[in-house]
Amino acid sequence: MSIERLLYLPLGGAGEIGMNCYVYGYGPAGQERLIVVDLGVTFPDMDGTPGVDLIFADIEWLEARADRIEAIFITHAHEDHVGAVGLLWPRLKAPIYARKFTAHIARLKFEERGHDEMQIKTVGVWPETIQTGPFTVGFAPVSHSIPESSALVIDTPAGRIVHTGDFKVDETPVVGEKFDREMWEEISKAGVKALVCDSTNVFSPHAGRSESEVIEPLNALVANSRGMIAATTFASNIARVRTLARAGEKAGRSVVLMGRAMRRMVTAGIETGIIEDFPSTISPEDAGSVPRENLMLLTTGSQGERRAATAQLSRGKYLGLKMQEGDTVIFSSKTIPGNEMSVARIVNAFSEMGVDVIDDRGGLYHVSGHANRPDLSTMHKAVKPQIVVPMHGEHRHLREHCKLAAENGLQSVLAPNGTGVDLAGETPKVVEFVETGRTYLDGSVQIGALDGVVRDRIRLALNGLVVATIIIEDDAPLGDCWCETMGLPANGTSRAPLVEVLEADLNQFLQRAARKTLADDDKLEEEMRRVIRRTTNDEVGKKAEVQIVISRLSE
Amino acid sequence: MSIERLLYLPLGGAGEIGMNCYVYGYGPAGQERLIVVDLGVTFPDMDGTPGVDLIFADIEWLEARADRIEAIFITHAHEDHVGAVGLLWPRLKAPIYARKFTAHIARLKFEERGHDEMQIKTVGVWPETIQTGPFTVGFAPVSHSIPESSALVIDTPAGRIVHTGDFKVDETPVVGEKFDREMWEEISKAGVKALVCDSTNVFSPHAGRSESEVIEPLNALVANSRGMIAATTFASNIARVRTLARAGEKAGRSVVLMGRAMRRMVTAGIETGIIEDFPSTISPEDAGSVPRENLMLLTTGSQGERRAATAQLSRGKYLGLKMQEGDTVIFSSKTIPGNEMSVARIVNAFSEMGVDVIDDRGGLYHVSGHANRPDLSTMHKAVKPQIVVPMHGEHRHLREHCKLAAENGLQSVLAPNGTGVDLAGETPKVVEFVETGRTYLDGSVQIGALDGVVRDRIRLALNGLVVATIIIEDDAPLGDCWCETMGLPANGTSRAPLVEVLEADLNQFLQRAARKTLADDDKLEEEMRRVIRRTTNDEVGKKAEVQIVISRLSE
Repeated sequence: MSIERLLYLPLGGAGEIGMNCYVYGYGPAGQERLIVVDLGVTFPDMDGTPGVDLIFADIEWLEARADRIEAIFITHAHEDHVGAVGLLWPRLKAPIYARKFTAHIARLKFEERGHDEMQIKTVGVWPETIQTGPFTVGFAPVSHSIPESSALVIDTPAGRIVHTGDFKVDETPVVGEKFDREMWEEISKAGVKALVCDSTNVFSPHAGRSESEVIEPLNALVANSRGMIAATTFASNIARVRTLARAGEKAGRSVVLMGRAMRRMVTAGIETGIIEDFPSTISPEDAGSVPRENLMLLTTGSQGERRAATAQLSRGKYLGLKMQEGDTVIFSSKTIPGNEMSVARIVNAFSEMGVDVIDDRGGLYHVSGHANRPDLSTMHKAVKPQIVVPMHGEHRHLREHCKLAAENGLQSVLAPNGTGVDLAGETPKVVEFVETGRTYLDGSVQIGALDGVVRDRIRLALNGLVVATIIIEDDAPLGDCWCETMGLPANGTSRAPLVEVLEADLNQFLQRAARKTLADDDKLEEEMRRVIRRTTNDEVGKKAEVQIVISRLSE
Repeated sequence: MSIERLLYLPLGGAGEIGMNCYVYGYGPAGQERLIVVDLGVTFPDMDGTPGVDLIFADIEWLEARADRIEAIFITHAHEDHVGAVGLLWPRLKAPIYARKFTAHIARLKFEERGHDEMQIKTVGVWPETIQTGPFTVGFAPVSHSIPESSALVIDTPAGRIVHTGDFKVDETPVVGEKFDREMWEEISKAGVKALVCDSTNVFSPHAGRSESEVIEPLNALVANSRGMIAATTFASNIARVRTLARAGEKAGRSVVLMGRAMRRMVTAGIETGIIEDFPSTISPEDAGSVPRENLMLLTTGSQGERRAATAQLSRGKYLGLKMQEGDTVIFSSKTIPGNEMSVARIVNAFSEMGVDVIDDRGGLYHVSGHANRPDLSTMHKAVKPQIVVPMHGEHRHLREHCKLAAENGLQSVLAPNGTGVDLAGETPKVVEFVETGRTYLDGSVQIGALDGVVRDRIRLALNGLVVATIIIEDDAPLGDCWCETMGLPANGTSRAPLVEVLEADLNQFLQRAARKTLADDDKLEEEMRRVIRRTTNDEVGKKAEVQIVISRLSE
């Protein structure tokens, strides 16, 4: 048995959908040379991460081994794969490899943060490869819901790994490369040690549908709509954006791009030569002079994002344009779990305007970008790996994907984030557990998910706050204690103002407090906190958060 | 034209799913005698209502007219119809009418709040009626996902109204009354002025399925499972609970009720004589001595509620029982939009234990309790009303239901919450707009949604807090200003402790501040707030919430 390890270590993505970050290593234990695949983000919500801007994998383990990192590879330009490059690169400092469109998007992120864009290297597709340390890596085109998605073919002295990235099996993907059976046969001919494989859609029982299948339904829908049309989808799904734009053009409508991401992605698509036949567009300003039945707006915000174009239009005039009775809004998208309420809010706002909203309920106007269960089997069978390693999915997806591998007669290993697996031998061996977690971009600062900062904010949101101030002179209160409240009802069950009840209870406590208590900040604070929490519980049924400020005048 | 109005006024439920509260009035404008149909709640979430306990309709309009309220009718015992009776009754003080099972649940709520349970009157079903003021009201049984759901047949001098409540068209409902075409023919024979009709499932294109259709699939699933089974559904869906219990019994399993609502609902079902053939159950304590493959747990928490039995089991031992590899969890339920993340969390936790989770993905183990689009048409055609008034739904549902009415050749009126419609004439007339809204039960206090209390808590959750204290003596700072932070990173971009940077900036400001500023609390506070928000923005990229305490020693 070789003393050299072939390490697979997910730091993000194997335990959630989003936040992808995978490490491969080759070499003696503890001295492996490393490559990183993807540096993605996931998005915060009020439930668990109020006020947080972005979430990504805790890369402390990697940072401590930065000198061993040969390179970073980005499979495609979705935020959950590329979103953290600008934020994390300074802590890793390895060169980044990506295909043209992905590199374009990554460079925009470097530009925003003032990093050296030369660190991002554009590479061609398989059979072209990059040699870096013990790794030889090629980008094998796959179809997905963004241009130039790629699987990575990672050759090591211990064998070949295929890391699928996100993919679907699409023979007619509209933009970009189709699923290429011959290429996969050729790649797998010499034997593949491990297929590290997308798991997000493992619970979808039917074979996935092609991007080209939405063209005719969307053409018909647009042709049969009367007033202004606003259509929304992920801007990065350039194939879909093109389909929508061309449906508009065909129906004699002028196309208007609304929202920064929409303009940015179409520009990136055109600049990188990915789309050559995009209809010409007009600006929102010029759209004002076009009859509304001749307009086709392509808008950001298919997930109900409050500040995106779709939401803005649902609230009234936006960039001079306003939806009205007889107009149509098309959601050419699936609502990601967790976003249902935001999307419903927008749909209801349009409903109040008399605008018809068409969504994907009937399955006509959207297809997924991920491989469904039968498509995963197609990949298993095309690659014929020694081991299947499910990645990108919640635990339930990874576990189900292991079951699917077994159905297909393949061995597999369930390796959630932090599980270091040695793939060198005949069977995968779990060789270490790395402490993993999440890092938050909170405003401009990176903080750990367990730092307690966000937990404190959640407590404030649930319980409200009482601030109490007391001045102590010579171990005796100087005057009365003062209270202020935030996020608590003005009056409690006694009907008296809550602040007055709090102050009365605290002053009564202070008058009776022992000199020993008054002399000891910690003890005084603890006792005052107890009084406040009891009073708020009695008055408003909540144990409020408490901030006590003690000012001592005696020196 | 009559000077008498027949008023329909929704205060809750016509603009959301949940929080049902409808008012009917008959009499001269402004002097109508009133009845109330349903006093329901809706549930809070972190997104918009952190820390809130329950949400219900603002009944200020009703309260101001309490002397004109003849009675309150409750259609069925779901929380979104009966949940607020205990909280709101003291403000209305009218007698409450409900069928036996509903009255049982309502009395439990009265008991909790110490109200007079005699105010809740149990009534029989149509053709029995209650005469109250100008109204004659009968409870016409409908099928739904809780026993004894009823439509109300409301006779007035201006004609008959059918208020469906929540309903489905089910000929074999397992528990309770089936959809009774003959009864509806008889009710509609003399002509129905208005059908006020459930709209929640208007977007579901296929006819609804019967509660009895899940029996065989669930029997088969339970028969084929090996280890312990935990099955969850809404406890109030007694038909489903019975189906699950009997599937367990059939497979030789002992049935265990886990969770307060599960015990409460089964008890209510047995006490009111609704279910006579419920299998005998054993306590969780006794279950410990039964082999796990002979256990069938029926658990609360199908929506992922953190403190319910299902979530407890997903976190480890609960009441002495613990799920393990080889066990099965069955979600015989649909996840309500907004609860996806909570349910996924539980499913993943079970996945980590090696427990198989079966949900309704395949459509086998759950059916909806609401009328789908074709079922709504069935009701339209059975009742043949002069006017359809869509109720219970978001705006988009109400609007779509109006379209469906038009398809069926019926006139309709879109009346969201607060829209007073006079139904007396040939066509409905909007006669007033009432200011409506939401009331929150926040701890033990009822507050208005727009009181700002919750908004302040949301701000604290998003932005964090800085508390600054300064003592002023003779219009000059006495010593330094002090700061404390909550929910903000300890260190900002300058790497120095945030509190120290804040104090340095504030003290610098105070030293330079004009005496005029120092002498004026408002001005001083405003200026300090400005300094703090600028500093937190520079250091951590957030404009924090600010609480400033100024103590003046000079008299």
